[in-house]
Amino acid sequence: MEKKKTTIVLFSGDYDKAMAAYIIANGAAAYDHEVTIFHTFWGLNTLRKEQLVPVKKGFMEKMFGKMMPRGADKMGLSKMNFAGMGQKMIKEVIKKHNAVPLPQLIEMAQEQDVKLVACTMTMDLLGLQEKELLDNIDYAGVAAYLADAEEGNVNLFI
Amino acid sequence: MEKKKTTIVLFSGDYDKAMAAYIIANGAAAYDHEVTIFHTFWGLNTLRKEQLVPVKKGFMEKMFGKMMPRGADKMGLSKMNFAGMGQKMIKEVIKKHNAVPLPQLIEMAQEQDVKLVACTMTMDLLGLQEKELLDNIDYAGVAAYLADAEEGNVNLFI
Amino acid sequence: MEKKKTTIVLFSGDYDKAMAAYIIANGAAAYDHEVTIFHTFWGLNTLRKEQLVPVKKGFMEKMFGKMMPRGADKMGLSKMNFAGMGQKMIKEVIKKHNAVPLPQLIEMAQEQDVKLVACTMTMDLLGLQEKELLDNIDYAGVAAYLADAEEGNVNLFI
Repeated sequence: MEKKKTTIVLFSGDYDKAMAAYIIANGAAAYDHEVTIFHTFWGLNTLRKEQLVPVKKGFMEKMFGKMMPRGADKMGLSKMNFAGMGQKMIKEVIKKHNAVPLPQLIEMAQEQDVKLVACTMTMDLLGLQEKELLDNIDYAGVAAYLADAEEGNVNLFI
Repeated sequence: MEKKKTTIVLFSGDYDKAMAAYIIANGAAAYDHEVTIFHTFWGLNTLRKEQLVPVKKGFMEKMFGKMMPRGADKMGLSKMNFAGMGQKMIKEVIKKHNAVPLPQLIEMAQEQDVKLVACTMTMDLLGLQEKELLDNIDYAGVAAYLADAEEGNVNLFI
Repeated sequence: MEKKKTTIVLFSGDYDKAMAAYIIANGAAAYDHEVTIFHTFWGLNTLRKEQLVPVKKGFMEKMFGKMMPRGADKMGLSKMNFAGMGQKMIKEVIKKHNAVPLPQLIEMAQEQDVKLVACTMTMDLLGLQEKELLDNIDYAGVAAYLADAEEGNVNLFI
């Protein structure tokens, strides 16, 4: 029997939305779905390494690089961010309720063979380079996403 | 013949987005779909009772409870909210054009047997308790959502 | 063999989100899918003509008309808009990397017979009239959207 498929386009760079994406992805993988998260636009920030990776960039690309959060742990909330306070509150309640914070959700996804894809077109636009992103991820464009999604049982845009 | 299925993850706590979710849900129910709205994160506010329900809470949970709107009628817009003015404008044009405001859309959904589910994991995080939410709703986690969605014809994340 | 189908609800009026919607739509059309973009709420602004079209409107409808961007080229970003600076930066990197700006993505979609639909209910609410919107688009409600989506292989809400 063919495996069921779940695909998520992660467009958002918000901590809470990325959390929702990864919780659904990990759930679907546990249900034995083939799961792909296609990171595009601000969602690419989820895949950034925390440390500063020295790369040559043009002016605009440097600007974007500085303005955008470096990695999942640095991202703000979509609501009630209050200059970062809401995000601290969320992290505190995650700890208190033994929920899993976003960086660990990403590790779990990689351990469960969720395919993490970075959208090459928007990497270009935002000036992000492969060595700035997590290891062991895939690189692809909208054609590859559609090939997965057209066979998908659950397809979401987050 | 099996019924078609529609599932919506309502992540957003914005009046306009929740309106879109409930209009699609009511439409699908009228089309004889089995419909589920899975409320998670800020989308849970759609299900809050308007009146203050006295419950014991920790400090963080009290804070979230105060900062978040109590029920559909209090939620702001995703765009052009202008400290509530945009929301007043939307409500006025809804009345003027005989459209259905959000609280009534929710009642209609309940009358049409749309399954309204509150995500227990994010209820925990935001410190929301069952008696603060509307009556006659379901409580479940991501596994139940996926079980519905993998059979869904239309699955949306809003 | 029946054609595969992709439907997108474009709720958002953000330049970057509309870009993502149209890139996926154009990709799916190139893959020979039947594609529909159903524009609702702020997503209707994507379809507005750039020039001011003189129409009779009530006070609220005039207000909405003035506050909302006239056409795709005027829309802001969902993130890092910084009073329009982020949007200028995005347009500049689009040019630099030979990517396609939103107004041209819309033209491409029309050339590829992507069905562009304006939601009549929300047109009413926001006071938008047919002659203010692009030529050669369709007008429909949620029932028509659902009829398309229930046969869809890829259904997204953006």
